[in-house]
Formats: sequence, C-alpha cells, structure tokens
Amino acid sequence: MGDATREIEALIDLMARLPGLGPRSARRAVLHLIKKRTRLMAPLATAMQTVADNARECVQCGNICTSDLCDICTSGKRANGEICVVEDVADLWAMERASVFGGRYHVLGGTLSALDAIGPEDLRIPALVRRVGDEQITEVILALNATVDGQTTAHYIADELSGRCAVTSLAQGVPIGGELDYLDDGTITAALRARKGV
Amino acid sequence: MGDATREIEALIDLMARLPGLGPRSARRAVLHLIKKRTRLMAPLATAMQTVADNARECVQCGNICTSDLCDICTSGKRANGEICVVEDVADLWAMERASVFGGRYHVLGGTLSALDAIGPEDLRIPALVRRVGDEQITEVILALNATVDGQTTAHYIADELSGRCAVTSLAQGVPIGGELDYLDDGTITAALRARKGV
Repeated sequence: MGDATREIEALIDLMARLPGLGPRSARRAVLHLIKKRTRLMAPLATAMQTVADNARECVQCGNICTSDLCDICTSGKRANGEICVVEDVADLWAMERASVFGGRYHVLGGTLSALDAIGPEDLRIPALVRRVGDEQITEVILALNATVDGQTTAHYIADELSGRCAVTSLAQGVPIGGELDYLDDGTITAALRARKGV
Repeated sequence: MGDATREIEALIDLMARLPGLGPRSARRAVLHLIKKRTRLMAPLATAMQTVADNARECVQCGNICTSDLCDICTSGKRANGEICVVEDVADLWAMERASVFGGRYHVLGGTLSALDAIGPEDLRIPALVRRVGDEQITEVILALNATVDGQTTAHYIADELSGRCAVTSLAQGVPIGGELDYLDDGTITAALRARKGV
C-alpha cells in the first residue's frame, strides 16, 4: 500500500471485503472517497453507521428494516391473505421492484440443504407455518430460486402446509425478451409442458 | 429499492457512487454489510469516518496522509536528492509497491491539458520548481503516464527545470512478461530505439 498511513490501509482492507471489490478496486474506491471526503466520504460514513446501528430483521417476516416490524408487515393494505416466500432479502427487493405483489413476505434465510446440514428449524419454516394459522392466510406463493435446493425447499413447505391453505409457485418458462437459442433444455421443457392457448 | 427503509436506500445511493459499483452491486454490497453489521459494517463506518476526518494532502508533495507532512516527506532516509514526479496519488502508491525508489515524490494532481484549460498553476508545478531549489535536488524523475497529456506535461517540466538539475523519465519498452504480439506499434518502436547490448 506504500505510503498510505495505517488508517487508510485499514480502510482499504475493510473495503476489499465487500462483494465485487478486490484489493485493487478497494484502493481505487478509497482514493476516490478521499478526494471527495466532504461531499461523499463523510455522508457515506454517517449513513453506514446509522444503518449499522439500526438495521435488523423484521421479527415477523425476516425482511431487513430499521424497526422491529418492517413497513410491509405494518401496512394494513398488505394484509390480503397472501404470503410470498423468498430465500433472501435480495429476492424480496427484486419482487418489490416488479411492484406486482400486494401481499406480505416471508424470508426463509436460505434453503434446506442436506450437504450443509441445514434443516427446517435453521430456516424460518416453523414461523411460516405459525403465520399461516395466525394471519388467516389463504395462499402461500413460493418464489424460491429454480435450483435443486430451492425446489427441495419448495416441496417441503408445500407438504407442511398441505390442506391448510393454497400453495402456489412462480411459473417457469421463457423469460421476457429471452431467445430460445440461449435457453437451457430444462427451461424449454418447462415452457413446453406449461404451454397455454393464445 | 422496494421495502428497504429510507436509511438503507440512502446508503445504497451513496455506495453506488463509488467507482466500480453500480446500483445493482451497491445493493448487493449493502445487503452483505447488513448481514455482517457487527463484524464488518460498524468497523468500516468507523474507519471511513476516521479517514474522512483526518485525510489530507501533504503540504509538500501532495501525497495523501493524515498529518500536514506525509511519512515520506518527514523521513530523513528519503532525502537523497531525488524527486519522482507522478500525476496522481495512485501512481505514487504503485511506485511504492515496487519498493525500488528511495527518494521523495511530487504529486502533480493531473496533467496539463489545453482542452480542459489546465495550466501549470492548476497543478503543483510551481511548487516543484521551488522544491528543486529548496531541497538541493540533483535529479527529477518524471514518472508520468505515457499518454499525450502526460508526455506534454513531462516536456513542460523538463523545460522549466533545464539547467537546474538532471531530469530523467521512466524507460519505455516491453513490459516484463509482455508478448510482442500483443504490444502496440508505439511500444515496439520505443523498445527498438532504446535497445541495449546484452
């Protein structure tokens, strides 16, 4: 790091631990920050401290928020009897960006995995089962990733909730703008099986 | 940003202004930070605040440091009569990583540019001329980038210092590990002209 003093080196080391940044890009980012230390670095440090102090998981759904219950769980408008189950907060944010789902969420915090010894009690699956009873849920929409672990988890949840409410999952098929030539065989198979009249 | 509360959205917006991060990777970085808020986010916020409060430019050479004079300028061992002139602090750090230069530095803060109306007084060129007299400098090594603006600046500085001390510049040629097939014509021409006996 050359002449960078100890404080600057420490900052570069910490920045390099962010996903998407390595030692080189961390150095570049820190240099940029130092050049804009009044207009960017100081506000960023404050914003980061605020979030570090206040961010926590919503006790009901596992979303990240700055109070005990997240905005979605406290909003009466979102109590429509539907819960969308996602693996991670990033997936919840992706769903919200689409602005198409009007119900509440339930963030599992991962997927079942025999290999990593992750069982239902390591995720928020028991809490989901409780919510279905407590909140008069009529439909649980499984928006889990289309991976082996994601689908295993979806099957497990569907079994747990069977007979208690409707359980659906996101449709599989050709993505909007997708070209058949670039799609994998599994997606084409799923899209063909789920074909619909036009 | 979906349900991310205002504080989290503000943090994502600020992070997205770092070089190398866009809105998507900033979101990913913030989510990672929130998951590791005790072990990574809080220390990072503190380190950033410390550097924002203390980082400044060395009054002598323009290096970034946390006191008025940087470690290199205060070190007696580096007063060997040589000054290495670089465009930017990042270049100074790159030179220091090579651990081959034992003198002091002078960071110009850019290059002369007719297009952007950057003249000698917008850079640290007058200060460099003063240092050559004040510090009994015997050699100024120009380590400017091999761009048009960099080379124009090098010529200007060489003229200013002519007759006052030796002025040299980094050798141009084939980089170590470089393959001729991938080198541009200019580099091959420079390497051939500067060929040396083996």
